Amino acid sequence: MSVVILFQHKEIGDWFKILKALLPDTKVEVYPEIENNDEVEFLVTWRPYENYINDFPNLKVVQSVGAGIDHLLHTLISDQVQVTRIVDPTLKQDMFEHVLSCVMAEMKNLLPYYKEQQQKVWKPQNYLSINQMTICILGLGEIGKLVAEKLVTLGFKVKGWSNSAKEINGVEAYFDEDGLAEAVKDANFVVNILPLTEATRGILNSDLFNLFTMPTTLINVGRGGHLNDADLILAIGDGQVKNAYLDVFHQEPLNEDHPFWVNDSIYITPHIASITNPETAILQVVDNYKRLKNNEVLQNIVDLKRGY
Amino acid sequence: MSVVILFQHKEIGDWFKILKALLPDTKVEVYPEIENNDEVEFLVTWRPYENYINDFPNLKVVQSVGAGIDHLLHTLISDQVQVTRIVDPTLKQDMFEHVLSCVMAEMKNLLPYYKEQQQKVWKPQNYLSINQMTICILGLGEIGKLVAEKLVTLGFKVKGWSNSAKEINGVEAYFDEDGLAEAVKDANFVVNILPLTEATRGILNSDLFNLFTMPTTLINVGRGGHLNDADLILAIGDGQVKNAYLDVFHQEPLNEDHPFWVNDSIYITPHIASITNPETAILQVVDNYKRLKNNEVLQNIVDLKRGY
Repeated sequence: MSVVILFQHKEIGDWFKILKALLPDTKVEVYPEIENNDEVEFLVTWRPYENYINDFPNLKVVQSVGAGIDHLLHTLISDQVQVTRIVDPTLKQDMFEHVLSCVMAEMKNLLPYYKEQQQKVWKPQNYLSINQMTICILGLGEIGKLVAEKLVTLGFKVKGWSNSAKEINGVEAYFDEDGLAEAVKDANFVVNILPLTEATRGILNSDLFNLFTMPTTLINVGRGGHLNDADLILAIGDGQVKNAYLDVFHQEPLNEDHPFWVNDSIYITPHIASITNPETAILQVVDNYKRLKNNEVLQNIVDLKRGY
Repeated sequence: MSVVILFQHKEIGDWFKILKALLPDTKVEVYPEIENNDEVEFLVTWRPYENYINDFPNLKVVQSVGAGIDHLLHTLISDQVQVTRIVDPTLKQDMFEHVLSCVMAEMKNLLPYYKEQQQKVWKPQNYLSINQMTICILGLGEIGKLVAEKLVTLGFKVKGWSNSAKEINGVEAYFDEDGLAEAVKDANFVVNILPLTEATRGILNSDLFNLFTMPTTLINVGRGGHLNDADLILAIGDGQVKNAYLDVFHQEPLNEDHPFWVNDSIYITPHIASITNPETAILQVVDNYKRLKNNEVLQNIVDLKRGY
């Protein structure tokens, strides 16, 4: 029986050291240094390689070290394996704070003023106020709900859209395909916090942008896979999208040749909207491992049909 | 009896048209087109010329069209003249929103990321979270109080400092010279919202920066006259001030040769943190004029000894 850490495109940091300390009687290994693949029951992973499942015949749990699990679903996962993820309470708050920073910066023109500062240009513009703003949140799960609620408290008008019907105080919530047009109508901001599933892949595309009834600022803190990059550039050119604040991309780091870098209406942050707190995450991993050993129900099991 | 609009460095916009419409039986004139200076009893003004008071022997009211009155106090004002100002409820909210935009942008590194985007550099940095932040508000008057209260609601630790003792729920409030060191101690942000008076002129200087116990980000939304420009540049060099978000300057527009434009730790906005809403302001001016006519007590009279 062993626990294996399999990280790609992610620093191992203190993960091995702390897991080892918290599970002193357990064999903890770091891929690819694995003594015996048959012993591996519990995989702690970020962006594992293709068909990784096949290499561990006795695997019982694939534990994502982030909130999302799209990074590990490229492989067919057998019914004998449970997939679990991290639900980090600080992640929701971090996401809210990042979204708030983008919304406020956009309303008060902070980035355009900085561009003008570089040219020594003094040109006061009208600013927008919170009580004039409508924000539409795509995705009203754990994270989207908190973001929506906090924006309501600040005085924003908040609409939302999700896969299934949701009720959130103070939020005009819509669902399924028919609700999408109503949700994004008259929105100054559309914020994507959806999980990446087959149903939501590429949802930020021309079909959606065509539903915008005014120049709308897009904030993508979901996944790069939600966005059709070419469609966004067209929508900016057509004025459907006013500006875009993007934190996630199909390929990260964003390729040097990518047109987003130099688009005057696109603001890039390097996937920092919410970084799983390693301390919280490690404790949840340890907890799940102990539950497995004690034949208890694991925490934060992913429904593979829903995809989150 | 006439009402005179005397604006300098400010567009007259719809002021004349609307005042005329709301006071149809009153003579409304725009400086310098004044028929008879002796008739002028009510002056509606922004940055009047020096010794303007002497030109209107029967003046009863000097009405500032902004929240501040420092711009009209360069002249000795006789006891027969009352000075009034605008108290715009949206002004307080606007100030809060601008301060919030700067605080959030700083915490999430939005401007450094934009600088890196211009170089096509992808370099994730740690971000700061609201629950780690202490903000010190200098000035706990009408505006400072609202800003402090709203920041508390969002989860910031908020300290404050003002001329006289104040009590605000959830805010550690200090006052007078002795309290200043305690107020700015351990503050990640110091936000200046003081009125500009003889006591506060130049208060943002090396003496204050020397009290900072950690690299502190300065947000000045008070007046340019509060800041010692040279001291700020030194404090940035010494690391006492981490970054500065400046919205107000000694001379506006900021002179092209001013070193602030090119300082890598200074972010300039062109005096937009709070712009008096002309509609609110005009209604308050009309109200005060009617009160004068009916021998009623005026609204928002300034205590010239305090200076606000």
